[in-house]
Amino acid sequence: MTGRALGVCYYPEHWPESWWEEDAARMVAAGITWVRIGEFAWSRLEPVSGDLRLDWLDRAIATLGAAGLKIVLGTPTAAPPRWMLDRHPDMLARGKTGQLRKFGSRRHYDFSHKGYREECARITEILARRYSNSPYLGAWQVDNEFGCHDTVLSYSSAALIGFRAWLATKYKDIGDLNAAWGNVFWSMEYGEFDQIDFPNGTVTEANPSHWLDFHRFSSEQVAAFSRRQAEIIRRYSNLPILHNYMGRITDFDHFAVGAELDAASWDSYPLGFLEDRSDAANSWKADFARQGDPDFQAFHHDLYRAVGRGRWWVMEQQPGPVNWAPYNPAPLTGMVRLWTWEALAHGAEIVIYFRWRQAPFAQEQMHAGLLTPDSREAPGLAEATQVARELASGPEIEGPPLASVALVFDYQSAWAWSIQPQGADFNYFRLVFEVYRGLRLNGLTIDILSPDVEDLSRYSLVVVPGLLAWTTGLRTALSGYHGHAIIGPRTGSKTEHFGIPASMPPDLLALETRVAHVESLRPDCSLPLEGGGHFYIWREITDGSSFIVERTVDGVAAMRRQGRLSYLCGWPDRVAMRRLLGEIAQGAGIRTTPLPDGLRRVETPGEVFWFNYAAEPVALAAVVGDSSLPEVLGPADFHRGARTESR
Amino acid sequence: MTGRALGVCYYPEHWPESWWEEDAARMVAAGITWVRIGEFAWSRLEPVSGDLRLDWLDRAIATLGAAGLKIVLGTPTAAPPRWMLDRHPDMLARGKTGQLRKFGSRRHYDFSHKGYREECARITEILARRYSNSPYLGAWQVDNEFGCHDTVLSYSSAALIGFRAWLATKYKDIGDLNAAWGNVFWSMEYGEFDQIDFPNGTVTEANPSHWLDFHRFSSEQVAAFSRRQAEIIRRYSNLPILHNYMGRITDFDHFAVGAELDAASWDSYPLGFLEDRSDAANSWKADFARQGDPDFQAFHHDLYRAVGRGRWWVMEQQPGPVNWAPYNPAPLTGMVRLWTWEALAHGAEIVIYFRWRQAPFAQEQMHAGLLTPDSREAPGLAEATQVARELASGPEIEGPPLASVALVFDYQSAWAWSIQPQGADFNYFRLVFEVYRGLRLNGLTIDILSPDVEDLSRYSLVVVPGLLAWTTGLRTALSGYHGHAIIGPRTGSKTEHFGIPASMPPDLLALETRVAHVESLRPDCSLPLEGGGHFYIWREITDGSSFIVERTVDGVAAMRRQGRLSYLCGWPDRVAMRRLLGEIAQGAGIRTTPLPDGLRRVETPGEVFWFNYAAEPVALAAVVGDSSLPEVLGPADFHRGARTESR
Amino acid sequence: MTGRALGVCYYPEHWPESWWEEDAARMVAAGITWVRIGEFAWSRLEPVSGDLRLDWLDRAIATLGAAGLKIVLGTPTAAPPRWMLDRHPDMLARGKTGQLRKFGSRRHYDFSHKGYREECARITEILARRYSNSPYLGAWQVDNEFGCHDTVLSYSSAALIGFRAWLATKYKDIGDLNAAWGNVFWSMEYGEFDQIDFPNGTVTEANPSHWLDFHRFSSEQVAAFSRRQAEIIRRYSNLPILHNYMGRITDFDHFAVGAELDAASWDSYPLGFLEDRSDAANSWKADFARQGDPDFQAFHHDLYRAVGRGRWWVMEQQPGPVNWAPYNPAPLTGMVRLWTWEALAHGAEIVIYFRWRQAPFAQEQMHAGLLTPDSREAPGLAEATQVARELASGPEIEGPPLASVALVFDYQSAWAWSIQPQGADFNYFRLVFEVYRGLRLNGLTIDILSPDVEDLSRYSLVVVPGLLAWTTGLRTALSGYHGHAIIGPRTGSKTEHFGIPASMPPDLLALETRVAHVESLRPDCSLPLEGGGHFYIWREITDGSSFIVERTVDGVAAMRRQGRLSYLCGWPDRVAMRRLLGEIAQGAGIRTTPLPDGLRRVETPGEVFWFNYAAEPVALAAVVGDSSLPEVLGPADFHRGARTESR
Repeated sequence: MTGRALGVCYYPEHWPESWWEEDAARMVAAGITWVRIGEFAWSRLEPVSGDLRLDWLDRAIATLGAAGLKIVLGTPTAAPPRWMLDRHPDMLARGKTGQLRKFGSRRHYDFSHKGYREECARITEILARRYSNSPYLGAWQVDNEFGCHDTVLSYSSAALIGFRAWLATKYKDIGDLNAAWGNVFWSMEYGEFDQIDFPNGTVTEANPSHWLDFHRFSSEQVAAFSRRQAEIIRRYSNLPILHNYMGRITDFDHFAVGAELDAASWDSYPLGFLEDRSDAANSWKADFARQGDPDFQAFHHDLYRAVGRGRWWVMEQQPGPVNWAPYNPAPLTGMVRLWTWEALAHGAEIVIYFRWRQAPFAQEQMHAGLLTPDSREAPGLAEATQVARELASGPEIEGPPLASVALVFDYQSAWAWSIQPQGADFNYFRLVFEVYRGLRLNGLTIDILSPDVEDLSRYSLVVVPGLLAWTTGLRTALSGYHGHAIIGPRTGSKTEHFGIPASMPPDLLALETRVAHVESLRPDCSLPLEGGGHFYIWREITDGSSFIVERTVDGVAAMRRQGRLSYLCGWPDRVAMRRLLGEIAQGAGIRTTPLPDGLRRVETPGEVFWFNYAAEPVALAAVVGDSSLPEVLGPADFHRGARTESR
Repeated sequence: MTGRALGVCYYPEHWPESWWEEDAARMVAAGITWVRIGEFAWSRLEPVSGDLRLDWLDRAIATLGAAGLKIVLGTPTAAPPRWMLDRHPDMLARGKTGQLRKFGSRRHYDFSHKGYREECARITEILARRYSNSPYLGAWQVDNEFGCHDTVLSYSSAALIGFRAWLATKYKDIGDLNAAWGNVFWSMEYGEFDQIDFPNGTVTEANPSHWLDFHRFSSEQVAAFSRRQAEIIRRYSNLPILHNYMGRITDFDHFAVGAELDAASWDSYPLGFLEDRSDAANSWKADFARQGDPDFQAFHHDLYRAVGRGRWWVMEQQPGPVNWAPYNPAPLTGMVRLWTWEALAHGAEIVIYFRWRQAPFAQEQMHAGLLTPDSREAPGLAEATQVARELASGPEIEGPPLASVALVFDYQSAWAWSIQPQGADFNYFRLVFEVYRGLRLNGLTIDILSPDVEDLSRYSLVVVPGLLAWTTGLRTALSGYHGHAIIGPRTGSKTEHFGIPASMPPDLLALETRVAHVESLRPDCSLPLEGGGHFYIWREITDGSSFIVERTVDGVAAMRRQGRLSYLCGWPDRVAMRRLLGEIAQGAGIRTTPLPDGLRRVETPGEVFWFNYAAEPVALAAVVGDSSLPEVLGPADFHRGARTESR
Repeated sequence: MTGRALGVCYYPEHWPESWWEEDAARMVAAGITWVRIGEFAWSRLEPVSGDLRLDWLDRAIATLGAAGLKIVLGTPTAAPPRWMLDRHPDMLARGKTGQLRKFGSRRHYDFSHKGYREECARITEILARRYSNSPYLGAWQVDNEFGCHDTVLSYSSAALIGFRAWLATKYKDIGDLNAAWGNVFWSMEYGEFDQIDFPNGTVTEANPSHWLDFHRFSSEQVAAFSRRQAEIIRRYSNLPILHNYMGRITDFDHFAVGAELDAASWDSYPLGFLEDRSDAANSWKADFARQGDPDFQAFHHDLYRAVGRGRWWVMEQQPGPVNWAPYNPAPLTGMVRLWTWEALAHGAEIVIYFRWRQAPFAQEQMHAGLLTPDSREAPGLAEATQVARELASGPEIEGPPLASVALVFDYQSAWAWSIQPQGADFNYFRLVFEVYRGLRLNGLTIDILSPDVEDLSRYSLVVVPGLLAWTTGLRTALSGYHGHAIIGPRTGSKTEHFGIPASMPPDLLALETRVAHVESLRPDCSLPLEGGGHFYIWREITDGSSFIVERTVDGVAAMRRQGRLSYLCGWPDRVAMRRLLGEIAQGAGIRTTPLPDGLRRVETPGEVFWFNYAAEPVALAAVVGDSSLPEVLGPADFHRGARTESR
């Protein structure tokens, strides 16, 4: 792992060239050592098709680099210029109702469009060839925020041609497709692949197998699009190639994209995400409105550490109020520093703030930067500067985090349960995230794993909630696993073709039960558990009267356990999730530390970090029961302490 | 009436042929004597246009029949195969915004499309000719669930051509249409019929007369589509021909469709309908989440008994959790039996469970069957078996129910008040249903009548809420009627052309009042009645100070009565509805039995049935005040007792 | 100002010609002296293109005029007949998703369509030429309710051609447009004007500068459409030309339309607007459900007085229940009279009721008139008659109102903050309206001003909330102004091109502060003010520790004041708004009269009017602290008293 460092996003094309040098000097003075540029500059790099104007970028790189900054250079493919549409009039994606996703903002392209893919390859090669040898370059970024603005699934002609070809390649025989999808059900059988349309717009719901394959196809387009650029850059450059993912985007398989890149990164906007992408109750949102959800960033840190196979960055870090959530408050003083340190504790190599100076024009003019539009210091700059000083003066952060618990996250499951939730509130991301929160509320440090994991031996406990279908790898890993495992609810309830497995859910021979039927629950029909808390959203009725370790008050099995393998027969609410996971973790020999709602703990090989997301101080030592800790941890503050085995 | 019996829906094409015999044997062992097949099998009957493959159906019928089962054979026209679209590319319906209702699920056809109608006639004739003489056949079903998935109104080219022709036939002179619709109002006058478009997509609301005629046209397309199949079958077969209607579908006139068939049937999904198609408050939905609304099934039983002119079945009975409501809980143990018995008490000839074995593929894989996908018994099977035993051992159920009260239900009124509700919460079905519930909460047994009824002499009380316009038949029947009648609110407030009648609402000379104006009420502006309860949603200000028998607390007349004719000047809430209807029923000499929310009573010529929909036991004898009844009736249980005149 | 008078809307084409004379006589008997006709009659004036049939209109005018009525004649261009579409198939507007706004109701035309503009010029000239010399004519109305039913912004081909030409004229060089809009931001730069599309349908939000120019273009189309008719009429007639605006329509600049007309008018539907166009809480809506919002009418009276440069009418006054709001109750007895008098107190010349007789057909058959459909008196007629008598017998109303406070209202700001609200609840109309209510709750009388005002010297206090960008006029007026001024929140926060001004918000040198950043607030995150009440929806963090006169409890400046210039750093709720505005008004030497929620006060040069909107009587003298007033003012009643300097 390279040394931890800070960076900032910069758009030289937005400012007079005469400002660049001073901007660079101020960055360096603040302790910033990386600068990300270029990802939206295509109309300046090539104002007219074929008319390349790279000289300004040469000078920008030279100016920034000369100041001592390392550069992340982005390919500009997320924002094709207007002339591109004249060359490729059918390159735009179409939405679910067929509407054109028009020019005038960004991400206006269809991943399936072969012509646009060629244009992207061309501009990537031009940049890779020209800048690979720059001494100032430190890394590459391909495109920007794949999938943002609902751009993975497209219903365009280009996508339809691609989808049919993809299906023909996968199934070869149309009869096999009919059988795999169960098309006999409503006389939906096809005679040839070219009769197949998108699954949108059907009179009532389309076949879920049809939808699942369309999601798979769409996800693979993203991976292919990304891979193409990475392959080109790699021909010229040995620098790490990254993409910057977003928060709670599940429309494509990030593991598949990440497999072809050198490291992952993501864009962390704690306040925007809390307001816009959280299932939390309004009271929770109000409590954390200026701090962000205490688990959302950590979850993505851990997820993208897995996607990056250990290597990951924060490519964009919220530095103040943003412009895009329904409500956009300012962070509490201290939160920008806290967020940065939390990322570092979870193993981030570089944390890059978005953006240097607030733009006084266009869509994001209400998005804060480290500078205000008139170049004064915005509050985020002081906090970034403080982190830079702390980094420089403090001990090296050992990494990655030291996780005793593993949690499996699977993008296909997210597609599947969005296609056929069976209950209005069933959402896969939410389920996994609530498990993650339940583990964190027990003070645990977690690794997130791909469903293709083949070795679980590092962990005392592995949790597999809501998995669509077992992978060979995970099935094998589990069968030889000596730690404790919790699976369910809904885990293993389908085949890869989105059917019910012949052996019935959870489709795991080691468990001597099967799910007889399930219930999705109205919000006012949650079911109390005998041990406290409730099942809500979902519960399952399983066969057999043995191995029951927990029941709902109506006497139905709520958790079953055979040896070290537990099956969770429902979706626990926060109280029950914390209790049940805590009990199992203790049973697995893991030391738990029950935490209040706003306090979080992360363990690294050498240290324990404590983060206070609450708006009030917390009596840390007393709450945690460890007198070696500070008595009080202030709001929006963190504590970094040595790890002692005895604790 | 034939003997009461049970059946099950079966899809031989979904299972290996080798399973059929054992499946049939298990059905028979459970006491099931009917099996419904065929209604989605077109792609297997004719995999390619003109290539008929009926041999498997021959064998399926032979196998099932040989086991002792009588067969209901469905025409497969609700699910045209994919090749049909190649032959009739314009056969798809279009939705209100013009969107194509695409292939990929079911019901993807436009009722107006002449080419598809011919294809349906062809396949119907093929089936009718081949199977009419089968000794195993017991009945025919045409198509499946007309109107389900919002498929009655179509905005396609085929529908537009049809609509214009229909208008030209109806009005002959375009000036007559302009006059009937009042098109002078906003210069909306047409010069010729071919200038008329659908009423959708106008800048602000279209003329309600325009909408009403479009509803009438659309409803007639359904009736014509159904009639065509019935006529063909009748040429070959004397067996009863049915269609299976759905719950709370009002887009077409079921009386018109039913007039050409031999019996009605409907698909009864108590839990799905409570969650998805009920206006009840959330607390009511929570109380009955695993039992269904205590009145919804009964209402449709009585409605379809009228549609079937006395003969009706349940063609699909929910056997466990379904897949299509926002939340899908499992029924309380006992409810499948209770629902079945309730249908029988209301006069159902046959009750058929949907479906035999849960499908492990495609859209309905989360819909329970009597068997689980791995062929084990699901909970519904035991309850069905119990009913079969009870039927076999118990006395014959006399029928139909013995109703002292009649309630008029009119599909045109449902269209009219959806077109121009005048208040966001005004819904015709809801109004009639709440009247029905109010009557049931008084322990009454009800007949539902078509607005074309010409004889009311069997009833002591008739209720006519919210009727758009008087029919000649009903006007005549009322004028010679010697029982009590309640009309209003909104009854008789329009002409057949959707204008205000010259004599003003309620357009009934027998009533010496007219509605001066109306109010639609905010949910927080309901109006207390002097006698208890409230008017909500709607109230009317009527002329005159005489004949007032109830007032709202602001002094406005709430009910008027002249002799045996009462006018209800608003929409009573549950408390007021129960009270007012109870008082009138008593005034009409009907014995009432006030019931708690979960208990219901049905009277037949020889018996009284009591159904407990509550999740708790009810102290039946004490609550009803009849010591001859059992002391306690358990949750999800029913009691069947002899009718004693003295009670 | 002409003498105050009452009128009624009448549609001779809806009734038998034989009724006209008696209708006219009844109007006159009721004290009505004006009648508005003609605005939807095009299909009767010209049933087929070019086939003019004006004879019936000649006779209608003659009959009405002979009875003593003055006539307002409307051009019928809001409802083009069906044949117009055959002549101009592309004349329909298109909505934001591209959908055609079809024929079948009204307002089905695109303001940009040149062919339709010519047709309108033609019919206007025909009417102007024929009726200008009629002795009975009193005024002209052009079209009807511009902008109603969301008809200003159109996404049609005609609009696109127009928009591109408009941009080319405005910017001349495409590079200037790119610079003004900041199109470099996401490579959104254009090479030529014809590459520019509408800003709808982009993948994520379009450039706000793009939207703002589209709004400007669209607004100018309305003004040009209106001006064309006015210019034609003016060639033939000296009578006043008006248009009837609606309530809370902000899609076009009414000041620009009004500048070319002789007087303004508007259509006042207090109950419909409260239910349908109010941000008030449900409890407020319930309290005033039968009276209307106590400030909504007054606001529009004052706004349209400004639009009409002092001259204004009510062209349509609600006379009873309407048909178009989600809930449509009837007004309390007395409210029709109260609304009429309130308009007169605010300076209305004529108040015209809509409509004479309730139509028994078509879209508005549930909209009350002064007569019921069977020609009996509806409740509104008695109240209108009473006002007529009161007008005839009472003293002349001096006018216009005597305002000590001015409030600036700017349509461009409404567009801007709808384009980029930065917080889900930020709405410009709502902000200005809540300021207006806060002033009224202090008993103040208000003038509303255009942002182009150049002289503020008549006022002791001027309030400028939420203004997008300073106009030269207002900037100059403020700099020489000797009264008190309150600006903010958000005032001066943008340039005319929708960028952040170089000197930073509020872009006013007189204020030694700048807005560093802003927060939009969740509804559950409002911020208490030290002096009482809260900021909600919005607050700003401003620079500097001086000049702070109010803080939120978190210590942040909530109001700053330098001399007589105050900056309001957030959006006060009702409690805070009333308090802060009252304190400032008193500081400006204005006598305030704190009023309860339902009571309002209007001052004219000679009188003070008191209006009781509450459903209960108010103890007027005690509440106001003026023993010369009546002790009690009944619900839905008003009091008119002499103005005494001492009070």
